[in-house]
Amino acid sequence: MAGQQFLVTLKDHPWFEVAALAASERSAGKTYRQAISRADGSSSWQCDEAFPEVFAEQPVVAASELDTDSVDIVFSAVESDAARQLEPIYAATTPVISTASAFRYEDDVPVLVPGVNLEHAALLKRQQRERGWKGWVAPQPNCTTIGLVIALAPLVRAFGVERVFMTSLQALSGAGKSPGVAALDVLDNVIPFIPQEEEKVEIETRKVLGRLEGEAIEPLDVPVSATCTRVNVRDGHFEAVTVGLGREAGPDEVAEVMGAFGREFTDLGLPSAPPELIRVLDDPYRPQPRLDRDLNDGMTTVVGRLRADQALERGVKFCLLSHNTKMGAAKGAVLLAEHLVQQGLA
Amino acid sequence: MAGQQFLVTLKDHPWFEVAALAASERSAGKTYRQAISRADGSSSWQCDEAFPEVFAEQPVVAASELDTDSVDIVFSAVESDAARQLEPIYAATTPVISTASAFRYEDDVPVLVPGVNLEHAALLKRQQRERGWKGWVAPQPNCTTIGLVIALAPLVRAFGVERVFMTSLQALSGAGKSPGVAALDVLDNVIPFIPQEEEKVEIETRKVLGRLEGEAIEPLDVPVSATCTRVNVRDGHFEAVTVGLGREAGPDEVAEVMGAFGREFTDLGLPSAPPELIRVLDDPYRPQPRLDRDLNDGMTTVVGRLRADQALERGVKFCLLSHNTKMGAAKGAVLLAEHLVQQGLA
Amino acid sequence: MAGQQFLVTLKDHPWFEVAALAASERSAGKTYRQAISRADGSSSWQCDEAFPEVFAEQPVVAASELDTDSVDIVFSAVESDAARQLEPIYAATTPVISTASAFRYEDDVPVLVPGVNLEHAALLKRQQRERGWKGWVAPQPNCTTIGLVIALAPLVRAFGVERVFMTSLQALSGAGKSPGVAALDVLDNVIPFIPQEEEKVEIETRKVLGRLEGEAIEPLDVPVSATCTRVNVRDGHFEAVTVGLGREAGPDEVAEVMGAFGREFTDLGLPSAPPELIRVLDDPYRPQPRLDRDLNDGMTTVVGRLRADQALERGVKFCLLSHNTKMGAAKGAVLLAEHLVQQGLA
Amino acid sequence: MAGQQFLVTLKDHPWFEVAALAASERSAGKTYRQAISRADGSSSWQCDEAFPEVFAEQPVVAASELDTDSVDIVFSAVESDAARQLEPIYAATTPVISTASAFRYEDDVPVLVPGVNLEHAALLKRQQRERGWKGWVAPQPNCTTIGLVIALAPLVRAFGVERVFMTSLQALSGAGKSPGVAALDVLDNVIPFIPQEEEKVEIETRKVLGRLEGEAIEPLDVPVSATCTRVNVRDGHFEAVTVGLGREAGPDEVAEVMGAFGREFTDLGLPSAPPELIRVLDDPYRPQPRLDRDLNDGMTTVVGRLRADQALERGVKFCLLSHNTKMGAAKGAVLLAEHLVQQGLA
Repeated sequence: MAGQQFLVTLKDHPWFEVAALAASERSAGKTYRQAISRADGSSSWQCDEAFPEVFAEQPVVAASELDTDSVDIVFSAVESDAARQLEPIYAATTPVISTASAFRYEDDVPVLVPGVNLEHAALLKRQQRERGWKGWVAPQPNCTTIGLVIALAPLVRAFGVERVFMTSLQALSGAGKSPGVAALDVLDNVIPFIPQEEEKVEIETRKVLGRLEGEAIEPLDVPVSATCTRVNVRDGHFEAVTVGLGREAGPDEVAEVMGAFGREFTDLGLPSAPPELIRVLDDPYRPQPRLDRDLNDGMTTVVGRLRADQALERGVKFCLLSHNTKMGAAKGAVLLAEHLVQQGLA
Repeated sequence: MAGQQFLVTLKDHPWFEVAALAASERSAGKTYRQAISRADGSSSWQCDEAFPEVFAEQPVVAASELDTDSVDIVFSAVESDAARQLEPIYAATTPVISTASAFRYEDDVPVLVPGVNLEHAALLKRQQRERGWKGWVAPQPNCTTIGLVIALAPLVRAFGVERVFMTSLQALSGAGKSPGVAALDVLDNVIPFIPQEEEKVEIETRKVLGRLEGEAIEPLDVPVSATCTRVNVRDGHFEAVTVGLGREAGPDEVAEVMGAFGREFTDLGLPSAPPELIRVLDDPYRPQPRLDRDLNDGMTTVVGRLRADQALERGVKFCLLSHNTKMGAAKGAVLLAEHLVQQGLA
Repeated sequence: MAGQQFLVTLKDHPWFEVAALAASERSAGKTYRQAISRADGSSSWQCDEAFPEVFAEQPVVAASELDTDSVDIVFSAVESDAARQLEPIYAATTPVISTASAFRYEDDVPVLVPGVNLEHAALLKRQQRERGWKGWVAPQPNCTTIGLVIALAPLVRAFGVERVFMTSLQALSGAGKSPGVAALDVLDNVIPFIPQEEEKVEIETRKVLGRLEGEAIEPLDVPVSATCTRVNVRDGHFEAVTVGLGREAGPDEVAEVMGAFGREFTDLGLPSAPPELIRVLDDPYRPQPRLDRDLNDGMTTVVGRLRADQALERGVKFCLLSHNTKMGAAKGAVLLAEHLVQQGLA
Repeated sequence: MAGQQFLVTLKDHPWFEVAALAASERSAGKTYRQAISRADGSSSWQCDEAFPEVFAEQPVVAASELDTDSVDIVFSAVESDAARQLEPIYAATTPVISTASAFRYEDDVPVLVPGVNLEHAALLKRQQRERGWKGWVAPQPNCTTIGLVIALAPLVRAFGVERVFMTSLQALSGAGKSPGVAALDVLDNVIPFIPQEEEKVEIETRKVLGRLEGEAIEPLDVPVSATCTRVNVRDGHFEAVTVGLGREAGPDEVAEVMGAFGREFTDLGLPSAPPELIRVLDDPYRPQPRLDRDLNDGMTTVVGRLRADQALERGVKFCLLSHNTKMGAAKGAVLLAEHLVQQGLA
């Protein structure tokens, strides 16, 4: 599905052109339309957006046989195991922007979030040097991490952050590989556990918000505690967050800092960038996944219910919503690519 | 709906008999079957359990004209405004067990949870004395509070508790008066705000877990921070809880303390009591509302995902599930009545 | 909600400008933004589309005091009882396009569907004459009828139709006035009855597809049998239809006739018209409400699963999907207005 | 899941004892508890009913190595392909009651429905003779067929039936093998196609309601037209049915005939039999899956909305609800076994 989202995002992209489509052996040699057609005449196209006819007749090659000389950037949306195998092959010659977790935790690999930590891209040079690659692998964070770090980044800068508690109510489309969550499991239900998710959020949050020291990242020295649950929502990860700030700040000041965050980034006018990284809402009933996930085509983190948290020193709490298959996946990856290109890094 | 749940609970009750049914003026003078019949022939009976035919022909009187001399206990399941008006009238002569919030926050009114704080019933005498009532009002806590205090009570006793963070994913049936949550509002969605709910949870938790000092309750001096959301689940409030303990304790020790909690209460063998107040599960995918809410007919608080919380000193975190219309409403109220009767207090 | 949908549709309309907003007494004197604001700071805006800021400061007048001299057309989206009262007042001076059922069954009132039966507009003159109105009332059909008549119209013309069976699976947003269907009633459920709906579909279908005889409509002399159910779907009425044709025709021929239907109408290029009135899909898993309701902004009736029905002479069966709040309500009404204006009838 | 349902049904069965448990190679050699445990400590037990601890330590054997000498009846709940392979092996020595479709369409195999067509069991002798088996295979019909034939059987007998139209709204749990329907596919949606389902319903309905001629079944010579859809409901297949009767009969007469149907069967007092095969409801809002599926533990077909169908000669239409994993699967199969045993046929 992340792969399909890439095509939706790249269909009319002003800078990037889809030069090649790679998939599993099973699809190799087919046109893209054939590759997503099932035996019974139905289609495995899963995005809300219409099937992009422009790619219908494009040939699909086996992922292992992609000619990386023919492309300038590889967008990789495979499962972690496949990523571990394929991405080094691609990166040998070509920059790889990846939604997979395979390399996120390696010392020489930054986890990049557009508008938040582009300076971490300095690690890409080290990665090339140490691994002998001409390209590199630049992974996005997990789709649950990304909204959290965007909301935390302005707090880290303005006030400092001392501890973070987060409970997520995650959408179905984040569950990854087909067939995803079974309807019988989630109808009239909450699933209180997503394997590996909490660890990913905790580690990635500290890494993304960490400080670049030469060519290494010093993770933010702040404990992060995550509880990740799945609810019966199509798209949009909802998170209830409590933060202990480094200095006292009231909800209004926090809202102002959040709303102003990333202006210099959004002012770059990158094709996939939203006009605002964070939108702070006053309506106590917001954000809601169905109502707010598509704000700015899913590229803005929507924050609401900002208030003091009396149970924590200098505590502030809020809810946030982040579109897990837009900013949290393919379109976020394309935005990252745009940023790297614009900065001359890709 | 809470009223209907009372009838389900009392239908075959070994101790209590339904002597009178009271409702709004609109229903007065009808039989109960007529009172819940709509003009088009359909029924407004909402419980999963079958309509209790035994009450079908029982006459319904206006709530304001209930003859309290004819009853030993009044179970009150009206909205808060009506409770504020009606319950004092009833309490003038008769003990009232209430699911309403109207009197929960008064100094001379205990908020009682069976198995947790029966000693607070000492306030009932003061209430009678100060208000000149022969009866009294004993409210249950909010349906979101009750599972939380049951899970916290053993921790308070065994380790002490220093702070509590809770994010709830609440069921639709907790939304109270008809028609409740609109399907359009909650389908494919999360609603991040429930008016007054967080304040109720924070205040009630401290009060229920407070210490009786003479005829007053000294609230537990612990900050409680709640974020209450609504999800598309029929029954069963799910809560993600983080607790800072007073002394270090590992998850296993916490699990043991929780699992052993309330044995002396459940050993009383009260008709509506579950065999265990808390069940602790090892399966990381549990508790789930649909799978666990009906354990022991919804009278057991189900705890899972017990683990250390690294972001807090002596932190432990867990998920819990509590059936909001069973232990959290009518059947919990009946259990409370049983306990008070058994202790000679009603 | 239909009223809100009108504003979404009219926001950037090339022909129509919103000259006045009318609502209940409760909203009169407020700006539109105030009128949809709740006491707690939340908004009652319910559409997926963003709140149209352009109307935010427009004043709202009481429906009973609308100055119809200031407008050329009234779009009416009130409940049936209000429509019976208000629409004659408006129609005394001004054409009224209505989504209400109040006047649909009167002899001098056509039930108009753009592209299907504009010739029925001849009744508007009779209506003016007989009622002494300068304007008229032109209601749309029920949101369940409209997809059915669009799909049947080409069959009536090409083959004749002898009987129609239809089972609907209707969306929540068709349930009309706030708060609509309660979540508890429809979660994990099907509701097998919608008051008056089946009668409406049966009568309206015959009327819309009827023959104009002078200034009267001779209803199509064909029995229509409807079973209308509600399912847990936001938007998009799904219908399983069986038709007995007047002459033998295979599924391919039926598909061709359907797909070609309304070309002369869509060629008019009206602002709200879809490029095709009917889209016929081959994929056996289509149409699906979530995937197909937004085709051409909800203005195309999507047909699938076309096959012979062996249980009926010259039987053919298919499934259809029609967007109940787009073609079935406000945007369909605007399209009707466009058609009437373009034909010089309004 | 059907296998698990068998254990729920057989746990406290007064006649049958579970002598052996067979499953795939993967589970062979484990205890049943081990066989349903996942690597991460969670359980694959899927029924609402509690895990039957009595079977926890029972060994699981490979299905292909089941010692049929040790059992009197085999309950088979495997997929069709496996059934085609395994059931003949079992039937060589032992009666097999099956929920699989593999043998339903063979001439010497009856499709048996308790209370409806036990006389078809005469084919079992022919089956034994022709196939040289000591046992036999007796399949149940599809879970969508069974409610339909139970509702039609009294009409066939009392009035004759000339044609049948049925649109189903089927539950998720009927989707068979894990993981079943993906939540993303069915949330806020209807799926209009279930492969092979309509053909099964059409053929099986005629066979079950057919006449035994010697040792052959003459299918009921009546066209059956089915449209089968999937909705977001856990359990309970809902069907909207139109029937052309052989002689005129009003809804009241039809209701009476339905309500009285099967008295002689239910009077047998078989352990799994409901007190009534069909319950006819007057409330126009019923049956509803959530409210009515568990009537008599899911063994009664619930009928409502009985009314004339004006579009068909002697037409009558109604809605029905049948529990697809109770009467429509394991518990229906156990009831069938009871009936065969009671009649001396097994």
